[in-house]
Amino acid sequence: MIPGPRILEIRRRVFEKNDLLARELRSRFEAAGVFVVNLLSSPGSGKTALVEWTLRELGASLRVAALVGDLATDNDARRLRESGMPIRQITTGTTCHLEAEMIGRSLVGWDLEDLDVLFIENVGNLVCPADYDLGENLRVVLLAVTEGEDKPLKYPPVFASADLALITKADLAAAVEFDRAVALASIESVHPGLRVIEVSARSGHGMEDWLDTLRRGAGP
Amino acid sequence: MIPGPRILEIRRRVFEKNDLLARELRSRFEAAGVFVVNLLSSPGSGKTALVEWTLRELGASLRVAALVGDLATDNDARRLRESGMPIRQITTGTTCHLEAEMIGRSLVGWDLEDLDVLFIENVGNLVCPADYDLGENLRVVLLAVTEGEDKPLKYPPVFASADLALITKADLAAAVEFDRAVALASIESVHPGLRVIEVSARSGHGMEDWLDTLRRGAGP
Repeated sequence: MIPGPRILEIRRRVFEKNDLLARELRSRFEAAGVFVVNLLSSPGSGKTALVEWTLRELGASLRVAALVGDLATDNDARRLRESGMPIRQITTGTTCHLEAEMIGRSLVGWDLEDLDVLFIENVGNLVCPADYDLGENLRVVLLAVTEGEDKPLKYPPVFASADLALITKADLAAAVEFDRAVALASIESVHPGLRVIEVSARSGHGMEDWLDTLRRGAGP
Repeated sequence: MIPGPRILEIRRRVFEKNDLLARELRSRFEAAGVFVVNLLSSPGSGKTALVEWTLRELGASLRVAALVGDLATDNDARRLRESGMPIRQITTGTTCHLEAEMIGRSLVGWDLEDLDVLFIENVGNLVCPADYDLGENLRVVLLAVTEGEDKPLKYPPVFASADLALITKADLAAAVEFDRAVALASIESVHPGLRVIEVSARSGHGMEDWLDTLRRGAGP
């Protein structure tokens, strides 16, 4: 259905309200000196594995925490809590994305001054989360080699709005005959100049580049 | 944001209108004797590869066609047209699912009496498409082994509403250390009794079961 003017008007107001709350969050994050990373991807692209690995590696030298969005279950939060870092699950029910208001509510009781980096693992969805600013400093889109090279062309808004793309599960590239040049060209055509890092949480490939990016972001 | 009563009321009316149109479509499909299959999954779970393979195999004995939903591009439709079967792309812009009205519009000019099986490849998204009946006879959810065993638990509505689950990319199960028993238990806990077929469009594994299901559906 092509949305009518009433629905468009309501959508516009939802986005406006979200943008306002996201601006407030961004001010709070800046005042507290916390670097906030919003991770977006399809279900199963490796967001949790990436965050798990990153919490462990960064946790030795920086104070890190994570918020994790899912329709149901707290599986990811339980998995990430093994890192010993502060983790909170946001359960969205049937909502296909996180919103700034959910982030604000989930931060209650946390002293942001005690954090250097906060990860927000969005709901697994390549469409809806693109429209919602969460006050993050870095928006990262993940594309797993197992998903195919054309996903940026088919889901342009999320790639167009990202600050960084990670090509994940790079250790499986050969097994799935991933065509790296085609994938990079797809990303470039949707978002010219977007920085891309190829990583594997399993082999550790490319992870040093990713950690450097985070360390620079969290730096003074 | 928790949706207010106004937004909930509008959502309710959108669903009601869709259900009405879906019922009309279902009557048309039944009158024409066409068996309609709605395919739902994450981006990159192998919907297009499955439809490509299926069009080729079924096309020898049945009259088959496909509608393909994507936010942008007609890549999938172009790819499927190589089968020689009638194919139409539905480009949704920023809409994260197909709706009954889009299906109705896309069928204009096609004589449904000339078809035995119509595939509808939904937008790649494990959340939003679950809410929209398209008048299909068989709703199929795909779960690729590369996505992880817990996706049914994390995205329950789409698995709860499906008539059949396909575990795809079965040829990659060993490479990604896919735990079949855990995946089957996840599906069973969200939708007890749901039929599951494990398939690979690359190796052909399990495809005969899938074809039999379609032939039975399209049968007199």
